[in-house]
Amino acid sequence: MSLLTVGTVAFDTIETPYGVAEKVVGGSCTYVSMAASYFTKDINLCAVVGDDFPQSELGYMKANGVNLDGLEIKKGEKSFFWHGRYHKDMIGRDTLVTDLNVLADFNPILPDSYKTSDFVMLGNLTPSVQMSVLTQMTKKPKFIALDTMNFWMDIAMQPLLKVIKKVHVLIINDEEARQLSGERSLRKAATKILTMGPKYLIIKKGEHGAMLFHKDEVFYVPALPLEEVFDPTGAGDTFAGGFMGYITSTGKPNFENMKRGIIYGSALASFCVEKFSTEGLKNLTQEEIKSRVSQFTKMVKVKI
Amino acid sequence: MSLLTVGTVAFDTIETPYGVAEKVVGGSCTYVSMAASYFTKDINLCAVVGDDFPQSELGYMKANGVNLDGLEIKKGEKSFFWHGRYHKDMIGRDTLVTDLNVLADFNPILPDSYKTSDFVMLGNLTPSVQMSVLTQMTKKPKFIALDTMNFWMDIAMQPLLKVIKKVHVLIINDEEARQLSGERSLRKAATKILTMGPKYLIIKKGEHGAMLFHKDEVFYVPALPLEEVFDPTGAGDTFAGGFMGYITSTGKPNFENMKRGIIYGSALASFCVEKFSTEGLKNLTQEEIKSRVSQFTKMVKVKI
Repeated sequence: MSLLTVGTVAFDTIETPYGVAEKVVGGSCTYVSMAASYFTKDINLCAVVGDDFPQSELGYMKANGVNLDGLEIKKGEKSFFWHGRYHKDMIGRDTLVTDLNVLADFNPILPDSYKTSDFVMLGNLTPSVQMSVLTQMTKKPKFIALDTMNFWMDIAMQPLLKVIKKVHVLIINDEEARQLSGERSLRKAATKILTMGPKYLIIKKGEHGAMLFHKDEVFYVPALPLEEVFDPTGAGDTFAGGFMGYITSTGKPNFENMKRGIIYGSALASFCVEKFSTEGLKNLTQEEIKSRVSQFTKMVKVKI
Repeated sequence: MSLLTVGTVAFDTIETPYGVAEKVVGGSCTYVSMAASYFTKDINLCAVVGDDFPQSELGYMKANGVNLDGLEIKKGEKSFFWHGRYHKDMIGRDTLVTDLNVLADFNPILPDSYKTSDFVMLGNLTPSVQMSVLTQMTKKPKFIALDTMNFWMDIAMQPLLKVIKKVHVLIINDEEARQLSGERSLRKAATKILTMGPKYLIIKKGEHGAMLFHKDEVFYVPALPLEEVFDPTGAGDTFAGGFMGYITSTGKPNFENMKRGIIYGSALASFCVEKFSTEGLKNLTQEEIKSRVSQFTKMVKVKI
């Protein structure tokens, strides 16, 4: 089974109380692919970069099963760049610079080989761009996941609602779920959002874990209480990538697989935040991932 | 096995976005006893009230296994009164009135029959008062739990550290754990606090659940995603009461029983917040509690 991931491949400059990482690799597609590559080697990446993006990073992706046929490299142009500074609590952050560069007129054109991908992860982009990806698919995907943010709810709610209607799972954080639904209670928010199209809803709660809603059911995975969160950048995309990578590997997007997928996604995200940029995600062994996953199941294990 | 609970029996006026409840029953001992009474009928309550406290409420407690020999009723005086207003998010709150009344010079004198209680729940009080209770015990309790708040960390850190040293489990919220330890990471905070005396630490995270730390182990119980939180007053005390009531019923304060205790405590707290004051806690059946508990275990159940 194949996984299509559409989003950004970019540079970040990240300031945290622990230090500064200048112009390091980032972007939703980068994190999604790296996390997913631990579960499937059939990943179709669709994004745009300038010719300033390091070949070595692209080489790492390729070597890990990421097809880059859909990565547009714009000669003489610069990759998308974000510069952010995290607050002391490592949750709040200020954006200091956003240089859209090549992203300003990103119009994803899927190579033919991508158009029959079985699983689709639509990263956080303009809703109309997300929709244009779906309309290019020549085979109905088995399962589509969508990430978005409050910015699009503020300025493009109608196009956003249209694309939300087309997807199977929406992956957003608690504040986004509240804004989208107009409900403070996450249970009520979920009930409302599940009438908007998606059969499944994942609400990410950062250091408090994540929840999966489906019909009247709810599954909760807490976040591991880590000694240190070093750099939260990309944690959400890594979570989504681990989740979708695992689901793709099963071929069956049902509730039980999604529960496992959320744990795999959380485990990958816990590696991600331990180092700057994508460093924590590189060269993990299956043993390391397995051991991290077992910490999640152990943490909630109880016999009543 | 017997459970001694020391704290307040009081009146609250509560304002929430859903309405106002004027001069309703509250106080840590009230919530602790009511929750604990579903697990043990050998509860020794120690608190002080004025003669304005309704006999009917005391009658309900007595009928549910709560010994009131240690409840001092001060003639011609008024019970402790708190008036608070919750913010729209139902988490933040402002205190509008605090009338200490009888609590101003509360000096708990344990009846002889209380002095050999096996389990002790020290509610949030002046640390020196908490210590005076422990010095009155003629038999070393099997297990002592302590609740406190940031107020005492601000003005009475040394006496607080002294009483913390004497207890087996400290039950505080995330912000209190951070203040007590000076660590932002809850994992690091826990490691530090577990060197201060207690072998166990429970960190309450409100709508995000609760965590139990012991040596290198951690257990996490998420909160149920409720449709509506109607009144959060007393949720923390109810949680502590359910926890201690359950542990008392087992007689064995080990890690496995504490894990179960935290789930029972969380289940009782979820009933508590559904109604004003103690109303949600009254006249529950064992079936209702069992069914709520099974929601907690179902919510995290996954086979990897």
